[in-house]
Amino acid sequence: MRLLSKLTAPLKSSRPPPLDAGAPPRVWIEGVEPTVDGGAFPVKRVLNDMVDVGADIFKDGHDAIAARVLYRTPGATEFKHAPMNYDFNPDRWFASFRVDSIGLWEFTVEAWPDAFGTWLSDLKKRLAAEQDIRPELLEGARYVTRRANFLQSDVSLKLQGFARELGDETQDVTARVVTANSKELAELMLGPLAADEVTRLRPWFTIDVDRPPAAFAAWYELFPRSQATIAGKHGTFQDTERRLSDIAALGFDVIYLPPIHPIGETHRKGKNNTRVAKPGDVGSPWGIGGTSGGHTAVHPDLGSLEDFRRLVKRAEDLGMEIALDFALQCSPDHPWVKQHPDWFHVRVDGSIRYAENPPKKYEDIYPLNFWCSDRQRMWEACRDVIHFWVNQGVKTFRVDNPHTKPLAFWKWAIADVRKKHPDVVFLAEAFTRPKRMKALAKLGFGQSYTYFTWKNTKQELTDYMLELTGPMSEYYRPNFFANTPDILHEYLQRGGRPAFRARLVLAATLSPIYGIYSGYELCENVPVHEGSEEYLDSEKYQIRMRDWRARGNIRDDVARINRIRRENPALQQLANLEVLPTDSEHVIAYRRWQGDNELIIVVNLDPMAVHETMIDVPLAALGLSPSQTFEVTDLLVGISYTWRGVRNYVRLDPEDKVAHIFRVTR
Amino acid sequence: MRLLSKLTAPLKSSRPPPLDAGAPPRVWIEGVEPTVDGGAFPVKRVLNDMVDVGADIFKDGHDAIAARVLYRTPGATEFKHAPMNYDFNPDRWFASFRVDSIGLWEFTVEAWPDAFGTWLSDLKKRLAAEQDIRPELLEGARYVTRRANFLQSDVSLKLQGFARELGDETQDVTARVVTANSKELAELMLGPLAADEVTRLRPWFTIDVDRPPAAFAAWYELFPRSQATIAGKHGTFQDTERRLSDIAALGFDVIYLPPIHPIGETHRKGKNNTRVAKPGDVGSPWGIGGTSGGHTAVHPDLGSLEDFRRLVKRAEDLGMEIALDFALQCSPDHPWVKQHPDWFHVRVDGSIRYAENPPKKYEDIYPLNFWCSDRQRMWEACRDVIHFWVNQGVKTFRVDNPHTKPLAFWKWAIADVRKKHPDVVFLAEAFTRPKRMKALAKLGFGQSYTYFTWKNTKQELTDYMLELTGPMSEYYRPNFFANTPDILHEYLQRGGRPAFRARLVLAATLSPIYGIYSGYELCENVPVHEGSEEYLDSEKYQIRMRDWRARGNIRDDVARINRIRRENPALQQLANLEVLPTDSEHVIAYRRWQGDNELIIVVNLDPMAVHETMIDVPLAALGLSPSQTFEVTDLLVGISYTWRGVRNYVRLDPEDKVAHIFRVTR
Repeated sequence: MRLLSKLTAPLKSSRPPPLDAGAPPRVWIEGVEPTVDGGAFPVKRVLNDMVDVGADIFKDGHDAIAARVLYRTPGATEFKHAPMNYDFNPDRWFASFRVDSIGLWEFTVEAWPDAFGTWLSDLKKRLAAEQDIRPELLEGARYVTRRANFLQSDVSLKLQGFARELGDETQDVTARVVTANSKELAELMLGPLAADEVTRLRPWFTIDVDRPPAAFAAWYELFPRSQATIAGKHGTFQDTERRLSDIAALGFDVIYLPPIHPIGETHRKGKNNTRVAKPGDVGSPWGIGGTSGGHTAVHPDLGSLEDFRRLVKRAEDLGMEIALDFALQCSPDHPWVKQHPDWFHVRVDGSIRYAENPPKKYEDIYPLNFWCSDRQRMWEACRDVIHFWVNQGVKTFRVDNPHTKPLAFWKWAIADVRKKHPDVVFLAEAFTRPKRMKALAKLGFGQSYTYFTWKNTKQELTDYMLELTGPMSEYYRPNFFANTPDILHEYLQRGGRPAFRARLVLAATLSPIYGIYSGYELCENVPVHEGSEEYLDSEKYQIRMRDWRARGNIRDDVARINRIRRENPALQQLANLEVLPTDSEHVIAYRRWQGDNELIIVVNLDPMAVHETMIDVPLAALGLSPSQTFEVTDLLVGISYTWRGVRNYVRLDPEDKVAHIFRVTR
Repeated sequence: MRLLSKLTAPLKSSRPPPLDAGAPPRVWIEGVEPTVDGGAFPVKRVLNDMVDVGADIFKDGHDAIAARVLYRTPGATEFKHAPMNYDFNPDRWFASFRVDSIGLWEFTVEAWPDAFGTWLSDLKKRLAAEQDIRPELLEGARYVTRRANFLQSDVSLKLQGFARELGDETQDVTARVVTANSKELAELMLGPLAADEVTRLRPWFTIDVDRPPAAFAAWYELFPRSQATIAGKHGTFQDTERRLSDIAALGFDVIYLPPIHPIGETHRKGKNNTRVAKPGDVGSPWGIGGTSGGHTAVHPDLGSLEDFRRLVKRAEDLGMEIALDFALQCSPDHPWVKQHPDWFHVRVDGSIRYAENPPKKYEDIYPLNFWCSDRQRMWEACRDVIHFWVNQGVKTFRVDNPHTKPLAFWKWAIADVRKKHPDVVFLAEAFTRPKRMKALAKLGFGQSYTYFTWKNTKQELTDYMLELTGPMSEYYRPNFFANTPDILHEYLQRGGRPAFRARLVLAATLSPIYGIYSGYELCENVPVHEGSEEYLDSEKYQIRMRDWRARGNIRDDVARINRIRRENPALQQLANLEVLPTDSEHVIAYRRWQGDNELIIVVNLDPMAVHETMIDVPLAALGLSPSQTFEVTDLLVGISYTWRGVRNYVRLDPEDKVAHIFRVTR
């Protein structure tokens, strides 16, 4: 193993050293990690993460190799480097570096034959075998001269001096061997002898570095228009502002608002998604655009843009942020329909095509034509909507149905916005086939909705977590919403309060990003009809005022779990998950860890019955011997138990404890 | 699913249709197979193989997609295409084509939104819902017009006619619907509407197509100088010629000769690798080059170049071919040493550096300096050696220690030779770390030596075959030599005749390419000393005349197994292997299949003892019901047994039957 940690002197230059790109490679470099699809897409990290780079590096013959990682901070032409070390895994090399700013980083791997190192190592063997090493000292001098000729002058002069000493046949061999072994010479020789000896992988690999809340946050979704305190009144941003401290007290980080824009009146939908709205029906916030404006306007009944900015500021003061919905579709009353009819699908008769899934018609929505002839300006206008809200202080966007707009648009728009504003995060609300969801995450979405709501059995959860925490975790950050305005799962409908409590623990401990849509804490569970996942009297089509302290609420659970998440680093990472064997199909147990922080979470998945089981504790991973006792403290209730050995007993009563979040003390 | 099998009319052009490479992609294409390292290296196939291409293809929204594989025969600018079909695997598309010539093929995948197909499918739904479809017919006419404008004139005219009919509002709707559904129109519309709607993956992927013996052949290695029939006499090509019919009768396809060139005298090694040769010692054939020539000369004692050509021709007449050794190293007497001293490592004192692994010295060998300043000419000279022997009729080269020469050299040299002579096959004799062996296979070697000789237990064989028959089989063709002049494994040394018989069956049935080095059929098993894998009186340093009918020979086994290999397609493929459970750790069983040809091979790995075991037959895979009886015929002895159900009994006595090669009759 050859350590290059002192590789500084000859490489203080701020640009990668020259290399002869046309020369046949001296060294083979393969299997670089971390990468997504061989480098086609960036891997994701957050600020101050360490990036552990691995690569297969080898060449012909027996000569030593030297290798390093080159990396660049976002937008820089400067590069830094980290020496790579050879590890036990044959021909595998490793290096690490810290990403200490947000944005798009680049890295690559370069390697070269370590001719001087090989020579020096051979020299020692020859000396030990008492061979005549005088010819070898001349060879060494030649290597030093070659590198002197390759480098810039100040270092070159030093190397030329060393070369003269090594090659000086009038001097004593012992003195020349001392020179050969000099630490300074070794440091100066750490690098290639010539440009054509360096193999550098191209193109560079990329790392998308986000601010930490992109990867760890608790989300809360609410409709501002429902936040009034007087029945029948349309809520405002000011009403919403009044609720902020309560939501902060529950421990949320992000408050996500459905669209806040004017709502179309043409073909507006009525309560419970009826085809025709009655007078006074408020319509769906996703029917964007009316006489008072489109995507850059606020609904007059919510207040002014200034009110909105104050809401954003006030949330920030409480350590939270406001996330907006970005839904690229228009009501027939949207200003773009008049200003740019060509941005829509114009039919031969000149009318604009409404949304359809033949024979079904959605006449309240006009989809944009992303491939219209004015494509470039239209895409820019959509992108500028984001810029508009970024300028109002919004840094997180929940993107509505991104899979119904071109992947190429998102790739371009997200990269374009993040180039200027790398602190902006996009959450993809795509509930579609797996490969499309993955593609959206690869091309730039920092977070993604998931199938979590439909994974309710132990096997389903285990399989899904295995997928999410595998290679996919390099680019896909799951946001586990326990419910949404569109999804009230049968499990919650039937399981009631115990089901809401269990799913809350699962969402909040299986994924570092999770969320609830308001009403969840009240265990609202009445569907519009049997077999539907839609809510009765859905807030999508009407105002719903709530009593936030209503009987049976699970606010205490929410606050406690959010606090546990903040206090336990093990819950702030996605991939560090190990599902543990239990004897009951109704009880799931899993381990999460980070440094010394060791958690075992146990959840009763059956909201109807008490279940008891033995769970298998992975003693070796926890650093415990089979005979040793250890303490586990349930952070939900503050009670400790003494456990010993692999198999330990738990009992979970849905009417009392639906789950344990054990912290293990060794 | 949309079948494009009739995609001919508008695409008879011989070049890929134009596409707008700068346009944002409409369709996403990922995960193309078969590929090696995402397309960095070719996959390997043989003549007339089917290539099954798969790809993940998807886009936003609900529109239909059409896709196809484009492929090019070696060197052609013409391309052919195969329509891709959507299969059960979500968003996965498939197509197949046959590679009907040898050389480097290229393929890629292209896809586009199937606007017309989507429109037609929607039209049918609208008709079923009794909607007014007149506006839709105008839309359809617009799609047809767009494609008419995109295509060349003759097809365009037809499409313009269809567009007029569809859009003719004076006509009856029913007639226009008939036009919309016309088969001719559907065929003409199978293709993109415009250049910027096509997404085509770049760069193209590659397939290296060899002649069939590259992937299925039995090899026999012999030293021509040992083929004389008078004791003490140096054998010749003519002596070798006399042995050909006997080797052909044993069923071999390739006869591999160690280097046939003049052997250096300076520092020549003596018998049993002694440092100093005695007068009359013949030296190692790998010490290449003497006063009578170098890599393009034949050793005078073997005969003339004409004799060699006759040997090649005579082998060909018998359905065999001669493979030569290509060992890029020189004895100090090689002509290149005088003509091109700069092609070697010249020391400061002007002397040439011999091979070393300090403190060990190999003074009989001068390694070439592949990075000398005359690199280009030196590489070309090495490449021209191959051309020289190709011109003498040699098409297969066993390359000696390729991992001690630059990977870049092999990549260039093999590609260069195969461009002119795609029928040339290179076997890599690299016994080194796995990643280097794999890299040589990826960059162009058509066959590779393996760790087979060191895999002797059931677990070792099972694990190794799992690796070789996995994704690695796309580029790595193992050649299972049961012994070599360098490797006489302890298993053979101790196990004697039963061990030789068992390893023969394993080599010949685990890999479609296998070989033995002469003497194996005589069960020669005396090492130079205890603990060594070298032979006593190794043929590498001296002539060994043999009695090919000596007592205890296993010629009958060899002939029978080679015949079984030729008669059973299941033994001619690598990846179709399934190891079957047995109750004994000494008995390995595996299934090989190809079409109707179903084999179950069972080998007793313990040469010292009888073992009996039950083996589990995979009934479902064989199309058998649990209660059904079926016949298995041991092709080695011609005896049949009636089996029934999963578990069946075998007993193998090393002194009698070491193995069964069962053919299953359903």
